[in-house]
Amino acid sequence: MQKSLLLVAHGSRRAQSNEEISQLTTRVAELASGRFAQVSCAFLELADPSIPDGIDKLVSQGAKSILIVPYFLARGIHVASDVPEEVAKARSSHPEVELVISDYLGASAAVPELIVNLAVDASS
Amino acid sequence: MQKSLLLVAHGSRRAQSNEEISQLTTRVAELASGRFAQVSCAFLELADPSIPDGIDKLVSQGAKSILIVPYFLARGIHVASDVPEEVAKARSSHPEVELVISDYLGASAAVPELIVNLAVDASS
Repeated sequence: MQKSLLLVAHGSRRAQSNEEISQLTTRVAELASGRFAQVSCAFLELADPSIPDGIDKLVSQGAKSILIVPYFLARGIHVASDVPEEVAKARSSHPEVELVISDYLGASAAVPELIVNLAVDASS
Repeated sequence: MQKSLLLVAHGSRRAQSNEEISQLTTRVAELASGRFAQVSCAFLELADPSIPDGIDKLVSQGAKSILIVPYFLARGIHVASDVPEEVAKARSSHPEVELVISDYLGASAAVPELIVNLAVDASS
């Protein structure tokens, strides 16, 4: 059974920033096609859907196992405490659903190379 | 003449988060070896050095051209206005130094694939 993927971003008062996350999620869904049952996004604060609402929606669409990917750069209070607390709320509503939180984006070993490539591209 | 690279992060009240940026900068410097004269980091707020101080230091070490890479995920107010304003302060202090701001990290076309890889790794 395939997992579903929930990309969790901070959320912004600027609609444009939230729209950027929505577009990113569409691109991730294209790339992840066939590897995840569904791909959607949710926000920690300042934008909808919330993390529990995003999980509710995936579950209502049949998800039995959801991987939550924190779209954050550093292990601050949001990654360490806030995202897990929101996921815990959803866990109590859906005890039958597997909810796993992956490493946050900034923890990826590929990030330093991405920065170098960005810098090299900007310099050429 | 090689450019220098200044990685600019938001900055946090948590020393651990700022230390994470410092370690990331060390890793970027290793990977970028030979392609940039110097690699260092600065913070928009809440941590030292500030962006003008980070630029001052690179200039004092001989930098004539500095590429500023915003380590941010979305084009919010920090990327759109705050980082450019801080760079502008440094520009008035060092009119002879070339200061260029690259795309922010989240704008990199490689980010969606990085998310998919992170998710696939967490699922395996």
